[in-house]
Amino acid sequence: MACRSRLAPIARRVSTPGLLRAARPSDINSIKALRCLPSTPARRFRDSAPRRGKFTTDSYPEIKRDPRFSRITADHVAYFRGLLGKDSALIDGVTADVSADDMEPYNGDWMRKYRGHCQLVLKPASTEEVSKILKYCNDNMLAVVPQGGNTGLVGGSVPVFDEIVVSTSRMNQIQSFDEVSGVLVADAGVVLEVADQFLAGKGYLFPLDLGAKGSCHIGGNVATNAGGLRLLRYGSLHGNVLGLQAVLPNGTIVDDLCTLRKNNTGYDLKQLFIGGEGTIGMITKVSIQCSQRPKAVNVAFLGADSFEKIQQAFREAKSQLSEILSAFELMDSYSQDMVHRVRQNKRPLDGEHPFYCLIETSGSNSEHDAEKLEKFLEDVMSKDIIADGVLAQDETQIKSLWSQREGITECVGHFGGTYKYDVSIPLKDLYRLVDETRERIEAAGLKGDTDEFPVVEVVGYGHMGDCNLHLNIAVRRYDKRVEEVLEPFVYEWIGKVNGSISAEHGIGIAKKKYLGFSRNDTMIDLMKQVKKLYDPNGIMNPYKYI
Amino acid sequence: MACRSRLAPIARRVSTPGLLRAARPSDINSIKALRCLPSTPARRFRDSAPRRGKFTTDSYPEIKRDPRFSRITADHVAYFRGLLGKDSALIDGVTADVSADDMEPYNGDWMRKYRGHCQLVLKPASTEEVSKILKYCNDNMLAVVPQGGNTGLVGGSVPVFDEIVVSTSRMNQIQSFDEVSGVLVADAGVVLEVADQFLAGKGYLFPLDLGAKGSCHIGGNVATNAGGLRLLRYGSLHGNVLGLQAVLPNGTIVDDLCTLRKNNTGYDLKQLFIGGEGTIGMITKVSIQCSQRPKAVNVAFLGADSFEKIQQAFREAKSQLSEILSAFELMDSYSQDMVHRVRQNKRPLDGEHPFYCLIETSGSNSEHDAEKLEKFLEDVMSKDIIADGVLAQDETQIKSLWSQREGITECVGHFGGTYKYDVSIPLKDLYRLVDETRERIEAAGLKGDTDEFPVVEVVGYGHMGDCNLHLNIAVRRYDKRVEEVLEPFVYEWIGKVNGSISAEHGIGIAKKKYLGFSRNDTMIDLMKQVKKLYDPNGIMNPYKYI
Repeated sequence: MACRSRLAPIARRVSTPGLLRAARPSDINSIKALRCLPSTPARRFRDSAPRRGKFTTDSYPEIKRDPRFSRITADHVAYFRGLLGKDSALIDGVTADVSADDMEPYNGDWMRKYRGHCQLVLKPASTEEVSKILKYCNDNMLAVVPQGGNTGLVGGSVPVFDEIVVSTSRMNQIQSFDEVSGVLVADAGVVLEVADQFLAGKGYLFPLDLGAKGSCHIGGNVATNAGGLRLLRYGSLHGNVLGLQAVLPNGTIVDDLCTLRKNNTGYDLKQLFIGGEGTIGMITKVSIQCSQRPKAVNVAFLGADSFEKIQQAFREAKSQLSEILSAFELMDSYSQDMVHRVRQNKRPLDGEHPFYCLIETSGSNSEHDAEKLEKFLEDVMSKDIIADGVLAQDETQIKSLWSQREGITECVGHFGGTYKYDVSIPLKDLYRLVDETRERIEAAGLKGDTDEFPVVEVVGYGHMGDCNLHLNIAVRRYDKRVEEVLEPFVYEWIGKVNGSISAEHGIGIAKKKYLGFSRNDTMIDLMKQVKKLYDPNGIMNPYKYI
Repeated sequence: MACRSRLAPIARRVSTPGLLRAARPSDINSIKALRCLPSTPARRFRDSAPRRGKFTTDSYPEIKRDPRFSRITADHVAYFRGLLGKDSALIDGVTADVSADDMEPYNGDWMRKYRGHCQLVLKPASTEEVSKILKYCNDNMLAVVPQGGNTGLVGGSVPVFDEIVVSTSRMNQIQSFDEVSGVLVADAGVVLEVADQFLAGKGYLFPLDLGAKGSCHIGGNVATNAGGLRLLRYGSLHGNVLGLQAVLPNGTIVDDLCTLRKNNTGYDLKQLFIGGEGTIGMITKVSIQCSQRPKAVNVAFLGADSFEKIQQAFREAKSQLSEILSAFELMDSYSQDMVHRVRQNKRPLDGEHPFYCLIETSGSNSEHDAEKLEKFLEDVMSKDIIADGVLAQDETQIKSLWSQREGITECVGHFGGTYKYDVSIPLKDLYRLVDETRERIEAAGLKGDTDEFPVVEVVGYGHMGDCNLHLNIAVRRYDKRVEEVLEPFVYEWIGKVNGSISAEHGIGIAKKKYLGFSRNDTMIDLMKQVKKLYDPNGIMNPYKYI
């Protein structure tokens, strides 16, 4: 459904009405599509068992186990076994021998940055079972970590000590879908891609899309208020989630599974669970407003000579593409060099540019959309805002161009590890953070081409349409010296420009101590009040968030 | 900017490619545009001083003044006078003689349904002044009613007894606007239309539009989570409000005036104030994500022979108009008869139909939008989904067609009064409530053409795109017998179909006792917990909401 007219290369841009060259299938096909993570975290971890990360307790020695929490006993296990009714509903490393490999998918995260000492995983099949589990845990002071697809980036879904993992994996049914209103009701453990594929069959889409969609659970998406690639178009989960079912630590079922778009009947309490990261309760079902699936999708990949020009292109895209603009993604040359270095693929554009952007349009009429996009491209090239670009000609090319953006995370991590910062910054200052971070790393003599330097590169990319920057520092190994250069520098910098230290990834364990750079003391006190109100024993996802 | 091709009348629909006739300027110009309420409630009430409503204390004799609240003394007034610094910042009916006319705009609502005994109105100019006022009130057990434009429909912004009105009217500055991100920061007392006109000059729009926009304040819009005419397109305030500043009863300033689209740093507490109706704090500033103002707007007014066909038209509109569909409004024949009866205007369509809908498209390219809309109209007429229709040819006709929808509220109230229900109902059942309510009213012998019957008509209309029905009972006078037929019948009916007893108007005093039809006991208990947490003395907007 992509634009059908072939566009000419940049060299001819002044005299020719068609300005951009089409992506050449030979270039594009050589780029392996890497959009989704492997399908389950379990398999991923079994495959890579030898590369386990450090225990969080070693990385964060200042975190001490809360002595109020009980140790898990055989009696506790027997209770849960009786409650869940079958052996496959729990992994018991307390009273039985369980291989570390079996426990690893629940104890470690996919980045190998966080790793807990959990010995008991529970897989309830219903909200009622979750309610009984949490009530029992609360009564017996057993700490709990709710866990979905475990694809988070801040350690929020990974235990630290011996917390019990309560997994959403067996609550994985789509409950209902209304084809007129577009409202989907589904269990928390439904994989995002499964939900989206179900909706595709009905002409709808899930109003959230992100790299981990093949693994992440929609309950986890809601619990972390995931943002993703198309928030620019479809808005945030605070707007799209119409209702949810959740369980409080005392076993109370919060049954607010409204399927109505408008419902002004009292405080909108469900909002506290959206982005609450499982610290006040566990989400078990979600009701969400889904959008019409666009019949036409077009993608262009453009190069520009400065960040100022990328900003101009964004302003023009908002104005000219307006209702069909569904993504405006930024990539710096360092990030694209990294993708090229790892994948050895041919680049989408012939020349190199300091900045690139990926523009996606989604609409109901492919001819109209192509016309708008072509007109926009002609405009930004004739004004010298954009230096060069390609326009995807088919679905394969669309995926390939997207993989230049979505592949960054993986390629940056290729060398050993990544320090990741997911931040919101007012647009005009957005890229300055990357430059200044790179300068600091270089000044400290930490970056170089050989193995003696811990840092490979400092790259910046992200969802420019949402002022959301991903600052990534690709490293050969995690190194205290690098950390000292990065922190608190990055957080202080963000605090000064009134940015957010976590745009979409959340707080988890990674950013807990830096919350003060984005929230004032009053707000933090009010948050602690909420935590105390709902989870007075503090059993829900302890050591994290607030 | 409307579609330019003239379309043929229904009689020629099979053989002619252009199917709909254009709205005739002569028809349309005779319809007086009545989109906005008078510009300030103050003037409105002064003009209609003789028609004051009953005191709420008379209509709801079961509500007793909370004896914990202090009576306002001269000392209290002196404190506030010293704090606010000038006489025009307060209306003092406690120690001075103030005419009832001066107090009436703050004591009564525009429907003349609710009326309080307030003797002191405070008009702070800043968040800091609000903070000092609320702290003093909390320390001295003085009850408070936050008030914006006082355009609400459920009595939420009107005092019941002698509560102090704290008005946002002097906090009315636009603080900032970012032309790249589209984020507006403004004081709570900015009139919605003023904000929207300011944004129009920048090529943006306020993502909310409603009939009272000439009077209502954006702080009140946020406090009541107003829905309005274009929620279908721009989504709810829970998604669009990025931040706010509010004051808790103890004087704490909740400074969460984030201007970032993504900010996952802890519980999203601001959401509790959105739709909290001033019961846990008073909003003083708002930060909101605004959308590009559409360059092209088209409006069609269509007639259909059944509610089933209107539903089909809605499904087709969603599918075919997709990203440019900005409103799909339902009107039954009874509502349109009422508009005709009051205004004596020529109807937009020659024939009469049981149901009408108004479809609006908003986009960035008028040719594309017109083409999509015409294709849609041809399709729904060729399939006999729609029986007849007109398409506005210019801005005047657009306004005139809208006034057929927006004028209903006023025309329904023309005969003396209106019982209003603003409810959400799953689409398939939406209109059944109107039919069944009419049957009950008729069966009780309460509806007729002469003065002895209290009921003039039972009409249904609303924001069909959001499953939001306005059930209105036009009456010659308020009558206990009518109320007994209506309630709890309407609320029970809604409870049975899992609807919402308040889609967008809120709870206020009108629906407080019916909350249980839309919320279970657990949810109500959790809400009470939140109220108690933030307002332990219960001074904020008492006798209402929860």
